[in-house]
Amino acid sequence: MNDLSALDRVRVVLSRTSHPGNIGAAARAMKTMGLTRLWLVSPASFPDPVAEARASGAKDILDSARVVGSLREALSGTVFAAGLTARRRDLSATRLDPRAAAAELVQWSRNTNGEVALVFGNEASGLSNEELGFCTLPVTIPANPAYPSLNLGAAVQLMCYELRLAAMEHSALPAEPLPEPATNDEIENFFAHLKSSIEASGFLDPAKPRRLMPKLRRLFGRARLEKEEIAILRGILASFDTSMKSCR
Amino acid sequence: MNDLSALDRVRVVLSRTSHPGNIGAAARAMKTMGLTRLWLVSPASFPDPVAEARASGAKDILDSARVVGSLREALSGTVFAAGLTARRRDLSATRLDPRAAAAELVQWSRNTNGEVALVFGNEASGLSNEELGFCTLPVTIPANPAYPSLNLGAAVQLMCYELRLAAMEHSALPAEPLPEPATNDEIENFFAHLKSSIEASGFLDPAKPRRLMPKLRRLFGRARLEKEEIAILRGILASFDTSMKSCR
Repeated sequence: MNDLSALDRVRVVLSRTSHPGNIGAAARAMKTMGLTRLWLVSPASFPDPVAEARASGAKDILDSARVVGSLREALSGTVFAAGLTARRRDLSATRLDPRAAAAELVQWSRNTNGEVALVFGNEASGLSNEELGFCTLPVTIPANPAYPSLNLGAAVQLMCYELRLAAMEHSALPAEPLPEPATNDEIENFFAHLKSSIEASGFLDPAKPRRLMPKLRRLFGRARLEKEEIAILRGILASFDTSMKSCR
Repeated sequence: MNDLSALDRVRVVLSRTSHPGNIGAAARAMKTMGLTRLWLVSPASFPDPVAEARASGAKDILDSARVVGSLREALSGTVFAAGLTARRRDLSATRLDPRAAAAELVQWSRNTNGEVALVFGNEASGLSNEELGFCTLPVTIPANPAYPSLNLGAAVQLMCYELRLAAMEHSALPAEPLPEPATNDEIENFFAHLKSSIEASGFLDPAKPRRLMPKLRRLFGRARLEKEEIAILRGILASFDTSMKSCR
């Protein structure tokens, strides 16, 4: 018997979607692959009859969709988030392909029993750098370099298909006990702490941030921080904070 | 250099498509994956402005599409045809999944230099038994048994994606320029610096080290540090060192 329960813990997050038809198409794509949790960040129009028409038999997915005002809210409580991007960015060395991303999402969800997220940006502009920064890792669908412009619903279909295959593939394997991962909130609190400490030390000049925080996000994103590691890193920062303060 | 020329010999055949929007979506999906040959068997409406709107930047695929009156015509000259079907039919022992079908299509095309076809039926009724009979083998996309109803454009996207991966698999990938990794010496110097700084801050007690450094090594080891990142991390440590020293 297949254990596809990991699919129940995958949030499909659509950020700032312009066309309600694409929300309907995404819902249909999700349901064909057995996913159910749709989160919408500031959609241009929702609910919308165009979304319902395109959802076809997947109106239940639309009815249970969560609508929130920011990507941070949509990721709150998740332990791993993969963000779709077509761009070849300079900070791109660790992009996953869809198959590797699906395997990671399923493994994380299984091993932690926690929720994971697959994040899609606006149709025209994709995920912003700030939005990608909130994700653990970027994912890029291999595409024709001359025309890499997948329709949003088609991209959701493709990723959900890979998730279903990954869930089927690994379902026979016993879950390996992993250290407890940090949650999105713990990670964001760590970055906020790090930023404040290196501003206090003078390393980060708020007037000239030089892409420092994005680079640090990328480094720690690759490491997939664990709960205990966040505690250690924040302990280190707190010790610096105290040492610096004691002399003012 | 990638040899993706097999993709030039794949016909995507849409039989008796009802909605011109789906023809446009299929054209877009094909172009994102580098396929170009669209064949339409008795479409309900073509050409059609709705198809052009949904094709987005793939109007060239629509412009060069071949319109024919029967599936036999569309398959004439091909050496292998895979037909999509959602049904569990009694003659289904040899159904392929999308990955296996893509591998077969690419191999056939490469080994024979001949054209191959991927055949999609009508949105509501799928391929008829007669149509499936014209295909070499049936393909079934693994889907939620309670709702296996993929949108036509989404199914085309998924199959073309698998074809692109199959075509890429046996050809050399272009080497992507990676960021320069840190050397072992740079990494060891960073750990020495980190140790000294957190001893100075009081976080690490040399008399009771509590496996702190091994844990930090494990964290940064997973990240596979780059040369520039080492420079940033040591810059941060140096800024803390200076701030702490200035008050002694």
